[in-house]
Amino acid sequence: MHGMDLDWKRFVTDRTIDFYLHECALIRQLTPDIPVTTNFMAEGHATQDFIPLEGIDYSKFARHVDIVSWDSYPDWNNNFESLAATAMKSAYVHDQYWSLKKQPFLVMECTPSFVNWHSFNKAKKPGVHQLSAMQQIAHGSDSTLYFQWRQSRGNSEKFHGAVVGHDDSTENRVFKEVAAYGKRLEKIKEIQGTTRKKAVAILFDWESNWALKRGGGFGRPTRRYPQTLQEHYRYFWEQDIAVDILTPEQDFSDYQLVIAPMLYLMTAETMAKLCQYTEAGGTLISSYFSGMVNETDLLYLGGLPQPLRGLLGINVLELETLFDTEHNQVVFQGQPFETRDYSAIIEAETAEVLGEYQADFYQGTPAITKNAFGAGTAYYLAARTNYDFFEQFYASLVRELSLAEERIAHANPEVSIQGRISPERTYFFIMNFSEKEQTLDLIKEVVDLETNQAVPPTVTLAPYEVRVVYFNN
Amino acid sequence: MHGMDLDWKRFVTDRTIDFYLHECALIRQLTPDIPVTTNFMAEGHATQDFIPLEGIDYSKFARHVDIVSWDSYPDWNNNFESLAATAMKSAYVHDQYWSLKKQPFLVMECTPSFVNWHSFNKAKKPGVHQLSAMQQIAHGSDSTLYFQWRQSRGNSEKFHGAVVGHDDSTENRVFKEVAAYGKRLEKIKEIQGTTRKKAVAILFDWESNWALKRGGGFGRPTRRYPQTLQEHYRYFWEQDIAVDILTPEQDFSDYQLVIAPMLYLMTAETMAKLCQYTEAGGTLISSYFSGMVNETDLLYLGGLPQPLRGLLGINVLELETLFDTEHNQVVFQGQPFETRDYSAIIEAETAEVLGEYQADFYQGTPAITKNAFGAGTAYYLAARTNYDFFEQFYASLVRELSLAEERIAHANPEVSIQGRISPERTYFFIMNFSEKEQTLDLIKEVVDLETNQAVPPTVTLAPYEVRVVYFNN
Amino acid sequence: MHGMDLDWKRFVTDRTIDFYLHECALIRQLTPDIPVTTNFMAEGHATQDFIPLEGIDYSKFARHVDIVSWDSYPDWNNNFESLAATAMKSAYVHDQYWSLKKQPFLVMECTPSFVNWHSFNKAKKPGVHQLSAMQQIAHGSDSTLYFQWRQSRGNSEKFHGAVVGHDDSTENRVFKEVAAYGKRLEKIKEIQGTTRKKAVAILFDWESNWALKRGGGFGRPTRRYPQTLQEHYRYFWEQDIAVDILTPEQDFSDYQLVIAPMLYLMTAETMAKLCQYTEAGGTLISSYFSGMVNETDLLYLGGLPQPLRGLLGINVLELETLFDTEHNQVVFQGQPFETRDYSAIIEAETAEVLGEYQADFYQGTPAITKNAFGAGTAYYLAARTNYDFFEQFYASLVRELSLAEERIAHANPEVSIQGRISPERTYFFIMNFSEKEQTLDLIKEVVDLETNQAVPPTVTLAPYEVRVVYFNN
Repeated sequence: MHGMDLDWKRFVTDRTIDFYLHECALIRQLTPDIPVTTNFMAEGHATQDFIPLEGIDYSKFARHVDIVSWDSYPDWNNNFESLAATAMKSAYVHDQYWSLKKQPFLVMECTPSFVNWHSFNKAKKPGVHQLSAMQQIAHGSDSTLYFQWRQSRGNSEKFHGAVVGHDDSTENRVFKEVAAYGKRLEKIKEIQGTTRKKAVAILFDWESNWALKRGGGFGRPTRRYPQTLQEHYRYFWEQDIAVDILTPEQDFSDYQLVIAPMLYLMTAETMAKLCQYTEAGGTLISSYFSGMVNETDLLYLGGLPQPLRGLLGINVLELETLFDTEHNQVVFQGQPFETRDYSAIIEAETAEVLGEYQADFYQGTPAITKNAFGAGTAYYLAARTNYDFFEQFYASLVRELSLAEERIAHANPEVSIQGRISPERTYFFIMNFSEKEQTLDLIKEVVDLETNQAVPPTVTLAPYEVRVVYFNN
Repeated sequence: MHGMDLDWKRFVTDRTIDFYLHECALIRQLTPDIPVTTNFMAEGHATQDFIPLEGIDYSKFARHVDIVSWDSYPDWNNNFESLAATAMKSAYVHDQYWSLKKQPFLVMECTPSFVNWHSFNKAKKPGVHQLSAMQQIAHGSDSTLYFQWRQSRGNSEKFHGAVVGHDDSTENRVFKEVAAYGKRLEKIKEIQGTTRKKAVAILFDWESNWALKRGGGFGRPTRRYPQTLQEHYRYFWEQDIAVDILTPEQDFSDYQLVIAPMLYLMTAETMAKLCQYTEAGGTLISSYFSGMVNETDLLYLGGLPQPLRGLLGINVLELETLFDTEHNQVVFQGQPFETRDYSAIIEAETAEVLGEYQADFYQGTPAITKNAFGAGTAYYLAARTNYDFFEQFYASLVRELSLAEERIAHANPEVSIQGRISPERTYFFIMNFSEKEQTLDLIKEVVDLETNQAVPPTVTLAPYEVRVVYFNN
Repeated sequence: MHGMDLDWKRFVTDRTIDFYLHECALIRQLTPDIPVTTNFMAEGHATQDFIPLEGIDYSKFARHVDIVSWDSYPDWNNNFESLAATAMKSAYVHDQYWSLKKQPFLVMECTPSFVNWHSFNKAKKPGVHQLSAMQQIAHGSDSTLYFQWRQSRGNSEKFHGAVVGHDDSTENRVFKEVAAYGKRLEKIKEIQGTTRKKAVAILFDWESNWALKRGGGFGRPTRRYPQTLQEHYRYFWEQDIAVDILTPEQDFSDYQLVIAPMLYLMTAETMAKLCQYTEAGGTLISSYFSGMVNETDLLYLGGLPQPLRGLLGINVLELETLFDTEHNQVVFQGQPFETRDYSAIIEAETAEVLGEYQADFYQGTPAITKNAFGAGTAYYLAARTNYDFFEQFYASLVRELSLAEERIAHANPEVSIQGRISPERTYFFIMNFSEKEQTLDLIKEVVDLETNQAVPPTVTLAPYEVRVVYFNN
C-alpha cells in the first residue's frame, strides 16, 4: 500500500519530532535562554553520494529547532573523485541546511582527520581540514565542532579521528592543524551571525523523494532525485552563484530562477504556486518525472495535470527507461548532448521546442521545451542529460537573468567563492579546492579580513588555501 | 538428506494440486460446463534466462487442468540480447506448455508494454507487442489475455503496463497497438482450436532438475539443465522444425528424434523406455550427467547403469568440471569445437567414436560417440559444447532423418516460421524477429489468411512484421 | 565492547577445549595407551586464501591433544594461481601445525581427487595427489588419511572425492594413484617419527588477529594478518629454508631470526621477551600495526610503547591507510619498491634509516629502519610491500645470518625441498610443483631412499615428481 507507506514515513518524522519536543519541554523550562537543537545528518555510502538524510523530513523538523545543526562528514580525500567534486556536494548540504531556516547553522560534528566506518578510512591530507572547515563558515555555519575531542582508548570509535590523538601530543600534525584553524577563526569572528543573499532556488521535497523511491517500474538504480538536483546545483556552485535549496512549501516567489526537476509528487497547491510564480515573471525549470502523483501517491489520470500542462505548454505521452549503458542524444543550440536513464516522450502544445531526440522510436520528438507563461517562462527537460548540457543550458539563463553580476572574480571550477553579508560588509571566502596553485583576477576591490590589507588585483592561492576578504557595502 | 528433500519437493507439488482440486470441486459443481485452469508461470531473473517454473512439477499439475494456461513475460526489448534470442526462449516455453497436454493452451497474462519488477523496465518497441502476441498463437495458444486492462492508480503495480494507461486515452501508442492486434485476430479466428504436428521431442524432467540442482560438487553456477535443453532446442527453432518438450513419463515412441541430454535422475522404467524407443528404430541423444541417480537420489554404483551402457555402447569413468573461463576442444567431422563446463571422460565399448578431446589429461579420449542399437541409433555427447557444435551435429541428423521436408521456406535464424494444422488446412506464422527488413523465398504456394490473396514466391517482411498464411491439405 | 568481544572469543576457545577434555576423560580411562587428538582445520574461501582456522586459538588447544592432526584441503588445481603458490600456503599451514608441539602431526583428512563445497570443484590432475601427499610427510606429518574411503551413495557428500568411487572399481585412475602412493610410503617408512630443524621463526598470535579484525578504521579488506605472514614465509619457502610459526608465548630464544610483523596486540610480557631476545643477539623484524593495543584491546597511549620505542629506535606518528588501488614507493638499497595498503609515518630516534617514502605528504620520511639493540638488531617495516621487496630484504639477512648453509641444492621457486632428521640421517623431499620438467644441480651427495642408489649430481624431475633422498649425519 504505497499511500499508507508514505503516511508511515510521515508518521516516523512526526513521532521523531514529538520525541524531540518531549525532551525539549524540560530543557526549555530549566534553561529558557539557551537555544535548543539536535544533530541533523547526511548520507554518504560507498557510491560517492553525499546527500541530506532521506529518512526524516527535516523541513518539518527544522520548524522546531532554534538553530539547525548537523554532523558533516563528506568523504574528503576518502574517495576517487576530485576534491572539488566532494566540495560541491558538501556545499549543497550546507546550503540545504542553511535554507531550512535561512539563518546561520551549526556544524555539530566533524573530524579533523579520518572517520572509521568506511571500507577504507583515509586521513585528510595536510591543509584539507582547514579548507573544509572554512567552507562550513562560508556557507553559513557559525561553528566548527568536533567529534571527538580526545580519541577513545577502546571500543567502536577508537580509530575515529580526534583533536587529541592516542599519542596525547600537541606536536601531532592533526592537533596543530586544528589549533591553527582556531586562531584564524579568532581573526574572522565578526562574520558570526551574518546572513547570505541568493537569487536562485532549487526545490527539494522529502515526501516526493519517498514516493519516487518506492516500488517498481522504471530503473530502480537510476531514480536518484537528490543526486540529480546536485548535478543542477553544480553549475551554480562552479559559477560562484549562491543557491538556496527549498521545499515547495517555502516561499520562493522572490527568486529569479526556480529549478524544480523531478518533482514527482505534487499537490494542487504546489502546482498553483508554480503557476503563480511563473505568471508573475519567474523562470521555472521542470523535467521528466514531474507532477505524476498526488499526496496520497495516486497517479494523476488523463496525462500531465491541467495546471502543469498550461504552465509548461506540453503533454507527456510516455516515460521511457534506458539501461544504464544506453543513451540517446539531444541537439540543443546546434550541439549534440548525450542523454541517459530517462526519456519523457512529449508533445509540444504551446511550448517552443528547443531540442529534439536524435534516436529510437521517438526520434525527432521534443526533448527540451520553453513556454511563455504570463510574464515568466517555464522550461521542461524531458531527458536526463549529463553535466555538459547544464553548462550550455544554464549559461544562457545566467546571462539572460544577470545572475552572475555580484561576483568578485571570474569563475574557476576548482576555486569556490561563497559570500556572507552583514549590514555593513560583504564577505567572501575564496577557497582553492585543488592540489595546484591557482591564480585569480579580481573584478572588485576587496580587503583581506585577517590582515586588513587591500588585496592586489591578482590573487595567487596555494593548494587548499583559503582567503577571507570583504568590501564595505 | 537429498532423497527426503526430493520427496519434499514432490510433496509441495502434490499439496499445491490438492489445494487446486479443493477449489475446483465447488467450481465444477456450480459451472460444470466451464473449463477450469490456473496460471502456470515461467522464470526470468536478471541473467537472461527464461525457463518454465522449476519449483512445481507442471507435468503432474497439467493432468488436473482442463486447459493449460500461463503468464507470459519474456524480456522483450528488456535485455541485452537479440530479439531472436528472446523469441527462441519464449517459443521454448510455449512449446513446453503445449506439450503438457498436446492441445491448445491459453496465454492468461501478458503485457502490451512493460513490466515493473526488473531493475530496469523498458517498454516493448512499437510493433513488438503484436509480434510477440502472434508468436503465442503460432505456438498453440488460443488467446492473448492482458495484465492489466486498466493501469492501476496506486500501489505496487501502478507502473506495470496496461491496455488503458494513466492517460485514459485511446490515442495512446500502446492502446492503438493492442486494438490493431485485436482486429488481426478477428481475421485469423479459424485457427482457434487447431493442433500442431511434430517429429522431434526434447525430454525434460522436473524431478531430475530438482535433484541435479541440489547439493555440492561440480560447478554450482553451470549445471543449467533447462537452459542447456534450450541450446539444443535453438537449432530446431532456427530451422523452423517444430519440437515437443515432453517428460520421460509421456509417450515418445512416435517421434523420429528424441533429445534427452543431462537426464541425471533416471528410473529403471525410463532406461527401459529409452532402450525400447531406440531398439525400435528411434534416434536418441544422451550426454554427460545422464543416468547418475535413481528416483531416491542415490547414485547408481558400478559405472554407467547396464541398460544405458548397452544402449550407448560406452562407460563413464570420470566427470570433470571446468571453470567458467576454461575450455577444451573436440574435433568433429574434421572441425574443432570449443567445449566448456563439463567433460565426461568415457571409454567406448561398442560405440563408434565421432569426436575426441584435444587437451588436458584426457586428451585423445572419446567426446562424441554413436552406437547402433537394434534398429536405432544412440548418440552420447560427453562434453558441453557451444551452439556452433549443435549446428554441425544436428544438420547431419536433420538431413539423415528428413526432418525439414515440410518447411515452406529455407530457414532464416531471425525469421521464425511455426505452423498449426486443422483437418482442412495447414497454417504458418512467418515472424520477423529482427529490426531489419527480411526477404524469404517460398518453397510452397501459400495464401495469406487475412487478405485471401495468393502470396508471391518472394515475401518481404518489414521489421517485426508477421504474416499468417496457409495451404489446403 | 571490543575488550569483551575479545574475551568472548577466548571463552569460545576455552569451552571448546573443555568439551574436548570432557570427551577425552572417558576415552583415556578406557584406552589409556592410545593417543587422543581431534581434527584441526584450515580455511579456504573463494579468494585463494589458505590459512589456519582463525576462530579457535589452536595454540591453547594444542596443549591438550597428544598429537596435532588436521584436515588438509588446499585448492590443488582448483584455483587460478600456480601450483607453487598453492603449495607455499599448504606448506605454511603444515609448518604452523608442526610448530604447535614441534613434533610429527597427522593429516587426518585429505581428498585424493576433488572436494564438493566450492563453486567449482575440479579434480587434482594425475600425479598431483601424490605430490601433495608427499608434501605432508616432508613438512612433518606421519600420516595421509582420507576423507572418504568409499564415496557415499547419497546426501551432501556424495560428490566429494574418495579412494573408492561410485564405480567400485580398482581400475579407476584415482584408486590407482592412491595405491601407488601407499607403496611409496612403505619404502620410506623409516621417516616416521623423525623431527625437523629450523633457525627461523614467524610469530602468529590468534588473539592479536581477533583484535585486529574487529571494528572500524583503516582498510577493512586489507588487514590480512595471517596472509601477510605468508608473504614473509614465501621467501624462506622458495629458498628451502625451513620456518617455524610460533606464538609469542612459545620460546623463541634459540632462533637466529624472528619475524613478528603486525603484532597488533602485545602484552608487556611479549614486549619484554622481544627485547630480551634481541638484546641477547637475535634479529627481529617488526612492522606497522605492531604494539598498538594491550590484552584488553585498549590502545597504548603516548605513542609507541616505551619498550618497543627503545627496541626499534623509532616513534610512530600516524598510520595512513591506502585504497587497494593506491600505492607509494620505498627506495631500499638503491632500488624502488612499490608499497600498498598501509604506511606507518614514523620518526627515527636511534634507528638507522634504510629506506624512505617517495610520495605523498610524508615523502622523505623513514619507511625501513634498523636499530642496534644490545647484541642484536631490530628492523621495522613501516610500509606494506610486495613480494619483490622481501626478496631483496631477506636475501641480505639470509647471507648475513648464514641461514642457507644446509641446503642440498640451489633454490628453485617451483621446486621445494624440505627436510626431516633422525639421529642417524637427514632426509630431503625434492618436490616439483610445476607442470614442467625441472633440473637441479646438487651441492651435497645424497642417496635415493627408495632405490638406495647414490643420486647423480644433476637431478631431473618430471612434472609433479617427488624424490626422497638422504645423507647420513
